[in-house]
Amino acid sequence: MFFSKSWNPDGKHVYVTGGSTGLGLSVSILLVKKGAHVSIVARNQEKLDKALETLEEHRTSPSQKILAYSYSLLSAEDSEKAYKAVCAGHDGRAPDAVFNCAGASKPMFFVEMTKEDLEQGMANSFWIEAWTAWIAAKEMVRQGVKGKIVFVSSTLGYMTFVGWANYAPGRHALRGLGDTLASELRLYDIGVHTFFPPTMVTASYVEENKTKPEITKAIEGTDDGLTSEQAAAVLLRGEFSESGVEKGQSHITGDWITSSFRASTRGATPMNNWVIDSLWNFFALFAIPIWRRTVEYQIDAHKADHMEHLRKIGFLH
Amino acid sequence: MFFSKSWNPDGKHVYVTGGSTGLGLSVSILLVKKGAHVSIVARNQEKLDKALETLEEHRTSPSQKILAYSYSLLSAEDSEKAYKAVCAGHDGRAPDAVFNCAGASKPMFFVEMTKEDLEQGMANSFWIEAWTAWIAAKEMVRQGVKGKIVFVSSTLGYMTFVGWANYAPGRHALRGLGDTLASELRLYDIGVHTFFPPTMVTASYVEENKTKPEITKAIEGTDDGLTSEQAAAVLLRGEFSESGVEKGQSHITGDWITSSFRASTRGATPMNNWVIDSLWNFFALFAIPIWRRTVEYQIDAHKADHMEHLRKIGFLH
Repeated sequence: MFFSKSWNPDGKHVYVTGGSTGLGLSVSILLVKKGAHVSIVARNQEKLDKALETLEEHRTSPSQKILAYSYSLLSAEDSEKAYKAVCAGHDGRAPDAVFNCAGASKPMFFVEMTKEDLEQGMANSFWIEAWTAWIAAKEMVRQGVKGKIVFVSSTLGYMTFVGWANYAPGRHALRGLGDTLASELRLYDIGVHTFFPPTMVTASYVEENKTKPEITKAIEGTDDGLTSEQAAAVLLRGEFSESGVEKGQSHITGDWITSSFRASTRGATPMNNWVIDSLWNFFALFAIPIWRRTVEYQIDAHKADHMEHLRKIGFLH
Repeated sequence: MFFSKSWNPDGKHVYVTGGSTGLGLSVSILLVKKGAHVSIVARNQEKLDKALETLEEHRTSPSQKILAYSYSLLSAEDSEKAYKAVCAGHDGRAPDAVFNCAGASKPMFFVEMTKEDLEQGMANSFWIEAWTAWIAAKEMVRQGVKGKIVFVSSTLGYMTFVGWANYAPGRHALRGLGDTLASELRLYDIGVHTFFPPTMVTASYVEENKTKPEITKAIEGTDDGLTSEQAAAVLLRGEFSESGVEKGQSHITGDWITSSFRASTRGATPMNNWVIDSLWNFFALFAIPIWRRTVEYQIDAHKADHMEHLRKIGFLH
C-alpha cells in the first residue's frame, strides 16, 4: 500500500467484459476518456453497436483503438474465443488489463430453485469472470505482460442473507479466486483487484427485482445504490475510502455499508489504510450485530406469509 | 448465541456424507457413541464396509440403525439418489441432520490448470456439499423436519494464497451458501452451521500433497494440523473457542490461526462470543498483516525458481 505507484490507463489496451451496458460501459467510458485502447465483449450485437457509438464520442485521440466483439462468456471455450478475438485486434498481444464486468443475478428462495437455477447462478456470478481470468493469466504469463486482472464481486461477496443462495456463493468464490491470484500472480508481477459494489441501479437490477422475494427487498430497503457511473469512478479512482484500481488496492468498496463489511471481513486481505480500516472495523463490531438482529427479526416475522406462499405455489400441501 | 439450547444427537437420524474416511468417519463414530442413527454415503464399497464395522463397535443400543450406501455426490442427480436411499432406510423420513463431510482438493499453479482442473475443483469443494444441502432442505421443509444442515469448509474459506485457485473459491462459496441459508432457513427453523477446519492429517491430505506446489508447502510449513478425531470433536462439541454444532454456533473453527481469521473475517456472521472474538480480532489486526508480508516475501523470493519450472514443463520457452 505505501509503496504502490498509481496505475495510468493512458495508451494501455484494456479488455472490458460486459462492456455494452451498466458498470462495464461506464468503466469503458472512463478508460476511453483517459486515453486507453478499449475492447469490449458482450452478447447482444445491437447493444454493442450503441455502446461503440457512445465510446467513440469520448475518444481523446484518433489513434485510440475502440473495438467491440459479440461473444457469450459462460463457457471456457467461448471465453477463449472472445479473448483471442480481443488479442487479434492488437496483433495477438495480450491486453494490459482485463476488467471482468459481465454477470447477472436471479434471487429467489432456495427451496424453489431448480438444478438449473443453481448451476446458472454459479455460471453468471463466478465462471463468467473466472474463465476469462484463467485464459488471460496464462496468456499474460506467456507473453510476459505485467498487467492487471480486475474482478467485480458484490457486497454479497462479503455478507449475505435470505434470497441469495445462487448468487452469494459465486460472489464469495470470486473473492476466494481474487485473493488467491493476488497472492499467486505476484510471481509474474500481475496485479489483481476485486471490486465489491453495492446495489447498482442498472438494467440488471431491474431484471433481478423481477424474481427477488419480498422479504429480500424489505431487507435491502434502506440501500439506495449507486449509479453505474458512480460505481465505475469508485472502481478506477476510489472516490470513496481511498480505494480504487489506480491506487493498486486489493479490495475496493463503494459505500459505507460495504466498507464496514470489508473492514470486518478482511481475513488475510491487505487493509487499504490500517488506521481508517481499524475504525471501520470498530464501528462494525457494534453496528453489524444490530443490523443482523434486525434482519433476523424481519425473517422470523415473515414465516407465516412464507408458508402461505409455499402452499400457493404447490410446494407444500 | 445467548439463548441457544444445546443440540443432542441421541435418537436422531444423522446423514453423514464422506462418512467412510477422515473427518466424516470420525464424526460418524462420535454420533454413534452419542446414540444417533447414522447413515453414511461414500463411493468406495470396500471402505464403506470397513467403516460400518468400525461404527458397529461403537453402538450404544441394539435399536440404533447404522447404514451405509455407495453413491457419488458430485452431481445433483446422484446426490438425490443417495439422499432418497438414506430416507428409504427410515421409511422415507428426512434425516434430522445432514453433515456434509465429502470433498477433495488438488492444489496446483493456476496457469497450469486445465478446464477440468477448475471444474472438478468446484465440484469437489462446493457442489459435493451444495447439492445434498439443496435436496435435504427441500425435503426437510416438505416434511416439516426442524433439523440441521452442516457444511464443512476450510481455513481456506476465510483466506487463501498461492496454489489454491481451484479450491479456495469453492470453500469461500460454501461460506456464502452457509451464511445465506443460516439466514433463509430460519423461515423453517432449520439450523445451519459451517465448519472451517485447518489442515487435517488424513488420506486426502496425503493425496493433495502429491500435486501441491513447493511454495504452497513452504507457506503452510508451520501448520501442524489436527487429526480427524480432534477435528470431529471440535465440530460437534467445540473443544476450542466455545464453538461447535451442539452449541448452535454459525461458524466453527478448530485452531488459533483459523479463529483469528474467523474473528477478523466475520462480515455479518454472528460472533461466537462478543468479548473473546473482539480480542481475536484485535490480535488479528496486528498478526495477520505481519503473516501476509512474510508470505508475500516468500512468493517474491520464489519467482526465479518458478520461471525455471514453467520452462521445464514447456509452458514457457
